[in-house]
Amino acid sequence: MSIQKPRTLSGFMELLPQKQALFDAMVEKLRQVYARYGFSSLDTPLMEASEVLLAKGGGETEKQIYRFTKGDTDLSLRFDLTVPLAKYVALHQNELAFPFRRCQIGKVYRGERAQRGRFREFYQADIDVIGDGRLDILNDAEMPAIIYHAFTALGLSRFVIRVNNRKVLNGFYAMLGQEAKAAEIMRLVDKLEKIGPEKVGAALRDDLGLGQDAAAEILAFMTIGGSNAQVLEALGQYRGRDPVFDQGLEELGQVCRYLTAFGVPEERFQVDLTIARGLDYYTGTVYETQLLDYPEIGSPCSGGRYDNLAEYYTEKQLPGVGISIGLTRLFYVLDEQGLLNDDYLSAPAEVLVLPMTEELGPAVELATALRQEGVRTQLYFEGKKFKQKMAYADRLGVPFAAILGEDEIAQGKVTLKDMASGEQRLVSPGEAAGLVNAALVQRRAAAPIREKAAP
Amino acid sequence: MSIQKPRTLSGFMELLPQKQALFDAMVEKLRQVYARYGFSSLDTPLMEASEVLLAKGGGETEKQIYRFTKGDTDLSLRFDLTVPLAKYVALHQNELAFPFRRCQIGKVYRGERAQRGRFREFYQADIDVIGDGRLDILNDAEMPAIIYHAFTALGLSRFVIRVNNRKVLNGFYAMLGQEAKAAEIMRLVDKLEKIGPEKVGAALRDDLGLGQDAAAEILAFMTIGGSNAQVLEALGQYRGRDPVFDQGLEELGQVCRYLTAFGVPEERFQVDLTIARGLDYYTGTVYETQLLDYPEIGSPCSGGRYDNLAEYYTEKQLPGVGISIGLTRLFYVLDEQGLLNDDYLSAPAEVLVLPMTEELGPAVELATALRQEGVRTQLYFEGKKFKQKMAYADRLGVPFAAILGEDEIAQGKVTLKDMASGEQRLVSPGEAAGLVNAALVQRRAAAPIREKAAP
Repeated sequence: MSIQKPRTLSGFMELLPQKQALFDAMVEKLRQVYARYGFSSLDTPLMEASEVLLAKGGGETEKQIYRFTKGDTDLSLRFDLTVPLAKYVALHQNELAFPFRRCQIGKVYRGERAQRGRFREFYQADIDVIGDGRLDILNDAEMPAIIYHAFTALGLSRFVIRVNNRKVLNGFYAMLGQEAKAAEIMRLVDKLEKIGPEKVGAALRDDLGLGQDAAAEILAFMTIGGSNAQVLEALGQYRGRDPVFDQGLEELGQVCRYLTAFGVPEERFQVDLTIARGLDYYTGTVYETQLLDYPEIGSPCSGGRYDNLAEYYTEKQLPGVGISIGLTRLFYVLDEQGLLNDDYLSAPAEVLVLPMTEELGPAVELATALRQEGVRTQLYFEGKKFKQKMAYADRLGVPFAAILGEDEIAQGKVTLKDMASGEQRLVSPGEAAGLVNAALVQRRAAAPIREKAAP
Repeated sequence: MSIQKPRTLSGFMELLPQKQALFDAMVEKLRQVYARYGFSSLDTPLMEASEVLLAKGGGETEKQIYRFTKGDTDLSLRFDLTVPLAKYVALHQNELAFPFRRCQIGKVYRGERAQRGRFREFYQADIDVIGDGRLDILNDAEMPAIIYHAFTALGLSRFVIRVNNRKVLNGFYAMLGQEAKAAEIMRLVDKLEKIGPEKVGAALRDDLGLGQDAAAEILAFMTIGGSNAQVLEALGQYRGRDPVFDQGLEELGQVCRYLTAFGVPEERFQVDLTIARGLDYYTGTVYETQLLDYPEIGSPCSGGRYDNLAEYYTEKQLPGVGISIGLTRLFYVLDEQGLLNDDYLSAPAEVLVLPMTEELGPAVELATALRQEGVRTQLYFEGKKFKQKMAYADRLGVPFAAILGEDEIAQGKVTLKDMASGEQRLVSPGEAAGLVNAALVQRRAAAPIREKAAP
């Protein structure tokens, strides 16, 4: 038989078992946190009719889409979870209760140019709250709490959630009579951190042809800093000059106001007037997130408020607010940075039962008893030498081996070996379960990420 | 703007939130049981290079495959989880420890003719144990235990796992000198239950041209019944006539021998000589499962032993044993039969907090406190009338509403309403969390399936 060389497509993440366990743990932690906030989990198809998925048409992503025909159906793989959500809500609008809160963690597909750390198949972990005609601003205020608790559950602590409001920006540019140039101005403002205010000011004047005063006013506005209260106070100075600005400021104030009640520490949340998040989708609150020690990673969790989720599918006005975590890329960069938690229980089992006799009844009974006590237990059946059995246990990385020879069986006991310390104890099966469960309490609760101490 | 009518592709299951919660619960229960037995979870890409995925070529499925090109790459969506596993094991063979035990729950794609209850996108929930050159028969003996505990965790109790061994069958046909007709004979034997032994006997003689004696011997063999011990004893009569048969009988005996030690009740497991499971893949033990009250559903969980997982990708001999649950179809038919558990907590939250005041600080604090106590809590922010708020709570199906008006806030309390009984209690936030957690203990542990009493 001819052999086909096996390979995995480039741009597709395929993990070895231990890494996969850590990835799964991230997904599971997010699921738990999202559930705690009251969201319905959805699982929409990976493909849709192209005319439906691409109803909005055009755009950067269109070239990247996996599109093909099967029979006479024109199909496309989803490239995000938002368009399928829009379709879902429009299609099932009469069967859903609004506000409709949904979470979805799933794979999406973009045929991007293959590049290190860029994926063509990747997970997004999204939550959105969709209103029917209207959606209270307090839904925007809850999002930072969810981000905060999600990141904390993953094991991250050195991050900041940066929040702005598009109405504040749009209103500000309206005050200056610069709505038409808003997009270009924002692109320059985005470079503030990188090239500094002087160069941005020069570019505003020279490249965009803004007057000295306008450029200065933009720089002054964009470099407003300090505590959230100080930023809001400084913004108060602009009040009364533009109704959109005033509404945006009111919304931003509301989003900041309940942070403590939501359990978000002040230092994890920062009003940042330079955040804009693309120009045609978001209409109010916008969110970004930054890992303080790894700013080069970009924003692993972003989102915002939009006016109308499903305008391509229904006349119904469906405002919403949501966030999305790019999970595959986040996992990739955390791994690159060495931030995956070595102490996480990523072995397939917690105990490997090693029978040393031909009759396997007692070993099977021991495994059954351990499993009943909640211990993840693997039985090793292969007739290998003791040394090979122990080498296998080492390779799996199991924390405990349970050795069962004739002596142990005669006494109704088992030799429980702690694989890390090498310590062995002769105990009853019930005691073994108790010892394992006690020893693993902390490791079972461990987060998949462990930050290094700040340099 | 023109409106694109939203729709979901036919043959693709898209569930409303409450049903999705039940589906997710099935997945979660399976994950937990599989993990308990010591398996590494995998998540391979949904697509592969066509030359890799279709290395085996030919066969029934080829027409059904979603195959397309992107750029100049010929791609195919996976149609099962076994071929990607074979590729994975061959590709990563030097990084894996053998036996390699993997579980994978994921979607697969087959462009079958659209038909009620047939899906083009569906979940498979697979486990496999792969050996390097050799794999002990006890791995086969463990599979019924996993099926038993998985089905039990889902909430099923009236089922039977039917087990046979292909070597027993092949050896038996060899005794009769009928190896060449084995496939045709098995097709007829498969109809035993439906058309009865007389008609099968006639067909064996008339259609396949078997002699009177051979037909009678086949019928006698295939209708061997009784307890597992009785079947094994009856099979013992054939021992010594064919070495393959003898080996198969030895294996079958081993698989039956440890059932009790594995915690499988005798009545859930049945040696059934009529089970064969396709003719070219399985080489030893084969499994099917039957829901006793719904035999028309077919086998929701099947599998068996194979000699060589990855012969198309590697010279290495990789014998294995595995089972697969067709989860989407199982869910569909259970739902059709009304077997989904109404009592399962399928609402997005356990408590809906309904603020009755403009100041929302206390409501947010209450929700934060409930969430910290593990209660899935949703905050309702919209400024609607009380009646509308309660109607929303009803529609979500939340078990509790927490009503927070000025009176409650003044007293530092909350009115906790049991939505089913209508009972209201004025309690502290801490008491509310305690009451909710206590009330939901049983429902949180509920299985997603609830069988009706047998008719």
